[in-house]
Amino acid sequence: GTTLLDRRSDKRIDSKWLSKKQSHPATVYILFSDLSPLVTLSGGAEKSQQPEVRLCRLHHKDVEQYMIQTEEFTLIFLGVDLQFHMNLTVAAHNGKVLQEDDEDGLVAWFALSINPTSAERFKQKHEDCYFLHPPMPALLQLPENEAGVVAQARSILAWHSRYRFCPTCGSATKIEEGGYKKTCVKEDCPSLQGVHNTSYPRVDPVVIMQVIHPDGNHCLLGRQKRFPPGMFTCLAGFVEPGETIEDAVRREVEEEAGVKVGHVQYVSCQPWPMPSSLMIGCLAVAVSTEIRVDKNEIEDARWFTREQVVDVLIKGNQRSFFVPPSRAIAHQLIKHWIGMNA
Amino acid sequence: GTTLLDRRSDKRIDSKWLSKKQSHPATVYILFSDLSPLVTLSGGAEKSQQPEVRLCRLHHKDVEQYMIQTEEFTLIFLGVDLQFHMNLTVAAHNGKVLQEDDEDGLVAWFALSINPTSAERFKQKHEDCYFLHPPMPALLQLPENEAGVVAQARSILAWHSRYRFCPTCGSATKIEEGGYKKTCVKEDCPSLQGVHNTSYPRVDPVVIMQVIHPDGNHCLLGRQKRFPPGMFTCLAGFVEPGETIEDAVRREVEEEAGVKVGHVQYVSCQPWPMPSSLMIGCLAVAVSTEIRVDKNEIEDARWFTREQVVDVLIKGNQRSFFVPPSRAIAHQLIKHWIGMNA
Ligand SMILES: Nc1ncnc2c1ncn2[C@@H]1O[C@H](COP(=O)(O)O)[C@@H](O)[C@H]1O
Ligand SMILES: Nc1ncnc2c1ncn2[C@@H]1O[C@H](COP(=O)(O)O)[C@@H](O)[C@H]1O
Repeated sequence: GTTLLDRRSDKRIDSKWLSKKQSHPATVYILFSDLSPLVTLSGGAEKSQQPEVRLCRLHHKDVEQYMIQTEEFTLIFLGVDLQFHMNLTVAAHNGKVLQEDDEDGLVAWFALSINPTSAERFKQKHEDCYFLHPPMPALLQLPENEAGVVAQARSILAWHSRYRFCPTCGSATKIEEGGYKKTCVKEDCPSLQGVHNTSYPRVDPVVIMQVIHPDGNHCLLGRQKRFPPGMFTCLAGFVEPGETIEDAVRREVEEEAGVKVGHVQYVSCQPWPMPSSLMIGCLAVAVSTEIRVDKNEIEDARWFTREQVVDVLIKGNQRSFFVPPSRAIAHQLIKHWIGMNA
Repeated sequence: GTTLLDRRSDKRIDSKWLSKKQSHPATVYILFSDLSPLVTLSGGAEKSQQPEVRLCRLHHKDVEQYMIQTEEFTLIFLGVDLQFHMNLTVAAHNGKVLQEDDEDGLVAWFALSINPTSAERFKQKHEDCYFLHPPMPALLQLPENEAGVVAQARSILAWHSRYRFCPTCGSATKIEEGGYKKTCVKEDCPSLQGVHNTSYPRVDPVVIMQVIHPDGNHCLLGRQKRFPPGMFTCLAGFVEPGETIEDAVRREVEEEAGVKVGHVQYVSCQPWPMPSSLMIGCLAVAVSTEIRVDKNEIEDARWFTREQVVDVLIKGNQRSFFVPPSRAIAHQLIKHWIGMNA
């Protein structure tokens, strides 16, 4: 499965349950420093396989020293393991005897973000682990189910680090509901009357589109200046307020490449925690072909033939150009198009 | 067409163009007070038709007195008219003679939000106009193309009214780029290094889903306590950080009604400016049937038969229950399902 956790949002307001799970020996902690997750290299199942980047799954005893009052830390409840329920061996771990009725068998996951000094101290003790930095494109090396957990945790941690003050009145805020809510501390702030999005984390919808030539046999790929040389990918852009997904696709393709789009079709989506986007992947059929690149937004955009794309994607011939790795939604969109009427 | 304006985001940074258009006699202003747009009732084309709610399209001379320094106002550039280009008669209006090379023929639209005192003064002079309040469900009375303009304007105005302070450092902010950007005034604020979503308006993705019974002949509709008696509609909820659209649909249906969902398919979307949501409409196929309502979220949820829904939607028999009006995406999703294999 691609999903590791059940978010169990009902537990976010159960502070007794949350604090019990925090110190439970079976609870899994994933550690962050400066928005980068702690990972390790684990050997493949067979000797010949490449080592894989995996999240370090820590336990309370590994992290409790970083969760004391004198330290600066942020704790987010991520959910409970979908596959794994505790057995008694694990529950009785660490010599603690647990009451039967205390045990619901759920394995809780938390994300813990610690300050740079703590992170240094931690690394000195755990030499096989490191913080995945810079996160892009390294995040794409993680297995899909772990990437989902990192997307969830990193988006929320980025929200806490960037939204420290109440945008309505400028006062300080406090974190609630397992990390999913932020409340202004000023008693008469208007944000405390009614429900407002200022209290909840952001998710920024982005459209990303495989634009198909009217002849059906070319697609439009572009590149930004900051890309590695030779890399081309699908055009993309933020959905604006008051705009549909389909209109955002048409506007962005026209703005960036001067190409007009008619029919738009949703294909699939991918959370992208940089810091908190939801990439909405579409196929878009062009109704004009002349390209006028907006140099402020992108460096280049070109029509590529189906054969060129098959060469790069299937045959792995990356002499002329290359596209993002297979775990990126752009790669999946391009592949989806190759698969169509192929 | 359903789209009235070309947003022309390239013009947002052209302050000379923007200020010239502000005082141009052909420019269209739509007025807001307390996030409600100014509307009027216009007779249908034929005498027998019901009067329709329409946006009041004002001009510079109607609003300039509210845009002086002593007043509190917010001005947003919305775009240029897609259909309408000025002709010389309009351009020469008001006795002003315009230089040929000054004229690009584009008719700009702005949203202007004024304070309550100004709004009172305005209403006294224009008795045929009123502010559409409360906006819900009244917004659904507007023609679709005008609803799109209101969605754009209202989302951005709500952002300015709720996000007055820099969430990163708590300082004051200033509005830039025709209303689409907000910048911290504190020189060394970290939000000024690099690009951050704190400077851009929010769009909150929401999933809304028509859940279909495994037998294909029932659908799941629910109601919240605050709905008018007898109204049922599709389940809905906010997409969380790190979550796909499809996973959000599955999580929300399970949380609210205890029903498990398998396949999910995107149908269409609708911006919903309360204050700034993007409603993403899906069909969702249930793989379980027992309903367990979470009373904290909704009041009731039931399986309705296809005949019951046809009765209400097509035959207009609203004795047993009713659904939202035809301009709401929930209505369209339900109708889409009736149309399938019908
Ligand atoms: N961006 C958001 N804006 C408002 N409410 C949110 C947001 N994200 C999550 N929520 C939660 O969703 C609830 C409102 O949902 P609804 O009744 O569907 O409008 C709130 O009480 C919050 O707990
Ligand atoms: N929520 C947002 N976060 C960051 N940038 C945004 C956002 N909304 C619009 N923008 C604009 O999109 C540009 C970045 O786009 P991109 O190069 O695709 O990451 C920024 O320079 C902004 O002008």
